[in-house]
Amino acid sequence: MPDFLTPLEAPALRGMGIPVPWAYGIMDRVRFYELDALNHVNNTAYLRWFETLRIPYLRDYGLSTYCEDDPQLVLMSNTARYLAPMFLGEDYVVTGRTAAFRKSAFRMEYAVWRDGALTCSGDAVIVSLAPGGSAKQPLPADVTERFIARDGAVREA
Amino acid sequence: MPDFLTPLEAPALRGMGIPVPWAYGIMDRVRFYELDALNHVNNTAYLRWFETLRIPYLRDYGLSTYCEDDPQLVLMSNTARYLAPMFLGEDYVVTGRTAAFRKSAFRMEYAVWRDGALTCSGDAVIVSLAPGGSAKQPLPADVTERFIARDGAVREA
Amino acid sequence: MPDFLTPLEAPALRGMGIPVPWAYGIMDRVRFYELDALNHVNNTAYLRWFETLRIPYLRDYGLSTYCEDDPQLVLMSNTARYLAPMFLGEDYVVTGRTAAFRKSAFRMEYAVWRDGALTCSGDAVIVSLAPGGSAKQPLPADVTERFIARDGAVREA
Amino acid sequence: MPDFLTPLEAPALRGMGIPVPWAYGIMDRVRFYELDALNHVNNTAYLRWFETLRIPYLRDYGLSTYCEDDPQLVLMSNTARYLAPMFLGEDYVVTGRTAAFRKSAFRMEYAVWRDGALTCSGDAVIVSLAPGGSAKQPLPADVTERFIARDGAVREA
Repeated sequence: MPDFLTPLEAPALRGMGIPVPWAYGIMDRVRFYELDALNHVNNTAYLRWFETLRIPYLRDYGLSTYCEDDPQLVLMSNTARYLAPMFLGEDYVVTGRTAAFRKSAFRMEYAVWRDGALTCSGDAVIVSLAPGGSAKQPLPADVTERFIARDGAVREA
Repeated sequence: MPDFLTPLEAPALRGMGIPVPWAYGIMDRVRFYELDALNHVNNTAYLRWFETLRIPYLRDYGLSTYCEDDPQLVLMSNTARYLAPMFLGEDYVVTGRTAAFRKSAFRMEYAVWRDGALTCSGDAVIVSLAPGGSAKQPLPADVTERFIARDGAVREA
Repeated sequence: MPDFLTPLEAPALRGMGIPVPWAYGIMDRVRFYELDALNHVNNTAYLRWFETLRIPYLRDYGLSTYCEDDPQLVLMSNTARYLAPMFLGEDYVVTGRTAAFRKSAFRMEYAVWRDGALTCSGDAVIVSLAPGGSAKQPLPADVTERFIARDGAVREA
Repeated sequence: MPDFLTPLEAPALRGMGIPVPWAYGIMDRVRFYELDALNHVNNTAYLRWFETLRIPYLRDYGLSTYCEDDPQLVLMSNTARYLAPMFLGEDYVVTGRTAAFRKSAFRMEYAVWRDGALTCSGDAVIVSLAPGGSAKQPLPADVTERFIARDGAVREA
């Protein structure tokens, strides 16, 4: 199978004009069902794109495969800023990175790029809980090291 | 037809334990298609609920019926904070109010209530443009007076 | 809480001009997110309405509450016939009934009504499997009796 | 940009084990938001895939670019038969072809393939109307010739 939807790493992103510090992205194309009656991409579709990026990101950074033994990752908040409307059939790249983390929580940033220009940005705060439980579970050291090394994440107190 | 989905005003909201300053709300029930594979309401569904509230709110406050002669309302940003998971078949009320406005932009706040307790809150910044055009169009005085009188909105410089 | 989204039985449906043999329905209103770029209700939204009806129907007829001990109900096919476009804010009733059943499978019919006129009809074939398993599980006699008594369902060989 | 979501023609499809007469397909991957609470792809997602295929198909076969001067294409019916459940992250190809046509209507068939095996099939009947109007508009001869030559479509009385 060809290489669509395969995560893009830093060199590929730079080749598309997407700057440092973004190091993880996925290409896709606007679908008809993502438009609303105003004929452009609906505001909620971008949040779905962030989620579609988040799931392989968390797998590839080693935090969760969304299986039973994995920490339960709870989305605490979401934001999106809409910078330009998007239309049917447009190609885009959605990128994600961890900007900051604490003991058991982290903040991801997201961005949507069309021809190297930003059309939407956002972020999300995520908390790690023990599997099936309600106690917070610290982020593993190998994961936070990847957050720092790949994404330039900042450790907060 | 019975009275479901009819907007609720301040007295009805108070009777449901929803406090001042909320003055506009819509009741609804969690649908199967709003759940995700984690079996609770997906994070994007709340943003849809905010939008479902926003459209009759803007009509009832006199700003837009989304017809050609109306100002073009552009969503600039969205936020959501998730306070408690929600599940299939739960009844809720989503409320909206304009918290602040300037000459041609305003900030709405949203909240989701289950049995009088908050499960999600959010906001959105919206800009008013001339019909079909790209020039900003000032908010009409009768609309901003309703923002103040009904919602307790603050006029910003 | 008021009585919206509460299932409607035969007498209420007759009062809305919905004919025999329909005996189970839910009222709702077209939402903005159900429109597509052509500005009418998207073809897939009707299938979601059928699903939103199916879940309380199967609970109220005693077949499944979608819990672990319940039979696993597998949707084998879906159809929809689109008779008239629908638009933002329109009120409608979606109705469902079991038209025919065999030992461990049944065929439901669905219809969407606006002001007593049909806008969409469809059906679905559903198979009942043992909980968690892959063996077919016969429909309980009390359920098939309700299919016959309430919906006029036909028993097939 | 890489070649994902670019329509696949007959030779590429044969190389993936997808048989004659399918001559038009699009590859994609199951997204998180296409799953429902039962943890597999929801029944309505397949209909969206058919629609996502239909739009470039109708453009590439020369019938419509969904612009104002194009015929208005009205979906009359939809069917789907579900043959196997699908799960997060699976790659698939959705294929479409016109199986039969009349003067101003045609019937498309759709199929979803995972590793060369069919997981879902369906069809849709579509009617061509004059732009903005309600009169039927005959299918252009160059389009019906493509239906026959590429897809093996049958002309019906």
